Amino acid sequence: MIKLIIDTAGGDNSPAAPVEAAVQALKKNEELYIIFTGNEADIRSELAKYDPVDTDRYEIVHAPDVITGDDKPTEAIRLKPESSMMKGIKLLRTGEDIDGMVSTGATGALVAAATVRIGRIPGVIRPVFCPIIPDVNGGVCGISDSGANIKCTPDQLLQFAAMGKLYLKAVFGIDNPRIALLNIGTEAEKGDSVHKDAYKLLSKVYGDSFVGNMEGRDLLSGNYQLIIADGFSGNILVKTMEGTALELMKLLKKKIYSKTRYKVGAMLMKSMFDEIKGFMNYQNYGGSVLLGTEKIIVKGHGSSNALSIEKCIEQALTMRRYNLNAQIEQEIAGIQEYMGVYTGEDHTSI
Amino acid sequence: MIKLIIDTAGGDNSPAAPVEAAVQALKKNEELYIIFTGNEADIRSELAKYDPVDTDRYEIVHAPDVITGDDKPTEAIRLKPESSMMKGIKLLRTGEDIDGMVSTGATGALVAAATVRIGRIPGVIRPVFCPIIPDVNGGVCGISDSGANIKCTPDQLLQFAAMGKLYLKAVFGIDNPRIALLNIGTEAEKGDSVHKDAYKLLSKVYGDSFVGNMEGRDLLSGNYQLIIADGFSGNILVKTMEGTALELMKLLKKKIYSKTRYKVGAMLMKSMFDEIKGFMNYQNYGGSVLLGTEKIIVKGHGSSNALSIEKCIEQALTMRRYNLNAQIEQEIAGIQEYMGVYTGEDHTSI
Repeated sequence: MIKLIIDTAGGDNSPAAPVEAAVQALKKNEELYIIFTGNEADIRSELAKYDPVDTDRYEIVHAPDVITGDDKPTEAIRLKPESSMMKGIKLLRTGEDIDGMVSTGATGALVAAATVRIGRIPGVIRPVFCPIIPDVNGGVCGISDSGANIKCTPDQLLQFAAMGKLYLKAVFGIDNPRIALLNIGTEAEKGDSVHKDAYKLLSKVYGDSFVGNMEGRDLLSGNYQLIIADGFSGNILVKTMEGTALELMKLLKKKIYSKTRYKVGAMLMKSMFDEIKGFMNYQNYGGSVLLGTEKIIVKGHGSSNALSIEKCIEQALTMRRYNLNAQIEQEIAGIQEYMGVYTGEDHTSI
Repeated sequence: MIKLIIDTAGGDNSPAAPVEAAVQALKKNEELYIIFTGNEADIRSELAKYDPVDTDRYEIVHAPDVITGDDKPTEAIRLKPESSMMKGIKLLRTGEDIDGMVSTGATGALVAAATVRIGRIPGVIRPVFCPIIPDVNGGVCGISDSGANIKCTPDQLLQFAAMGKLYLKAVFGIDNPRIALLNIGTEAEKGDSVHKDAYKLLSKVYGDSFVGNMEGRDLLSGNYQLIIADGFSGNILVKTMEGTALELMKLLKKKIYSKTRYKVGAMLMKSMFDEIKGFMNYQNYGGSVLLGTEKIIVKGHGSSNALSIEKCIEQALTMRRYNLNAQIEQEIAGIQEYMGVYTGEDHTSI
């Protein structure tokens, strides 16, 4: 049996979408058991819309409160223990047989709570938040870290590579991803001492899989499948990419509506624009994951529909079946000898 | 008289484009005097293509060597003293009556050389590299810093705002730009201690002009006119924006060619796509500037044509006529009392 908590609040389509997703996933996966957290009455009325689900396969934990994007993450943890998310995190910590949690709630609160409250895989310094983005050639690329760790040591960055690599293998079947370090230039000596040291460390441990430093401009190029970054710059990378794509599509739309000739042209190209919109739609690539915690955490986009959340559940199931956390533990132990050598302290001067 | 050095090497269209730009600018600006650095014979043969320029209005300093993007900036400074760029920088340092330099050569080398070799405006801790990017509403936005300073103190970030603000006023006529601090969330307490302190400092000094933290996703929104960033994340911001826009346009093009119907549609929309390409073309917004040095430095894009370089020359002239550096000196003196209070050292814990 694989036991997953489904946070039914906090997303744009909550609780309808998470409940529908869970019902579908239960149908398709016999070993799945679900713990819903959220408003019990609402969850029950959503469940009533579908063929009755065997009551042996789920339970509901009433949690009347909701964490929103307006709550400060650290305050949400302390002040909203009755929220669907914090009750979920508490269950995850205390319930030894619970494997993971899927949530479409506030990212900051989820990452902070899971990092602080859930134990780490032995050897892991800090968990890493890893979303998946598409590249223009139809491939995918993981960003490890994209916001869980503002400041990082070279050892942490190495571990981000170790965890991200196994995650890409488990969920996307990618062997030996092309790993790159986010930096402000491609030369080995670019960036501060942390980046210079991380470069050396990644070269030593991952050899040819580590293709070197990459610049923000190459994000969508398809040249890289796993980007290692401190959480500050990784966050800026992902959000800038997202914002630029959205603003350009908005600009395109505005311009199309400015002239009849453009409207006619756009009609001929409708299926093409739909394809591009699909390409840019995060939801088609599953959720973002927190790696390094003892339990599986999958974060779906706030605007996720039922299908996207079902994908997040499938992702959690795949991670569990692959025994990803055991693999991570082994990989982290295997690179232990490289740890502590590179401190990232200023040892160079221009 | 305003004396500017024109680096005629290192750009994609060198020396033809820089020489043509200089000839045009000399025609339009009576007080302009130009010092060309580069291969003298090549410069003379380019000059021969135009109506003779009064020999009292220019001189040529022979510099046979070229710094390319492949040269490491720090090595280029030491190993290529005979390059058009380094001879230009040397002249700029020693020639008291020389006002500035325009170059389309390697950015890293130019920024490094100017930062190290050219004196600073009194009070300025470090110069800042500030490119201009467009927003979707037709406005412009300066990014201060986008790569000259990997690590920054809160005081430096405050000075970046002071310098960027005056630059936007001088060249784009923007009074009280909406200033934002690049961060990983909009709340005041986001980021590391440097960012938290910089937030406080910017609020104190620039009051309502400082609109708070901004995220990468809002770069093109038009909500901000001056973005304050450490050079590491500012660099990632600019390059990610640039790369995402280029990759999306490439994807669009590829898809258009995949079906006849799309090609017909695209033909109807040709003028629209041209407009969008124009919007995304950096060259239409002039060069990037290094602010805080005693002399004016304008860096044109490597692919600049003559018209773009002429715009860079006009930009340098405008900065000089506005006495931008004197204004910066005054502004920096005016904010002196706020300096040294916020250290950006870790004073908070989660």
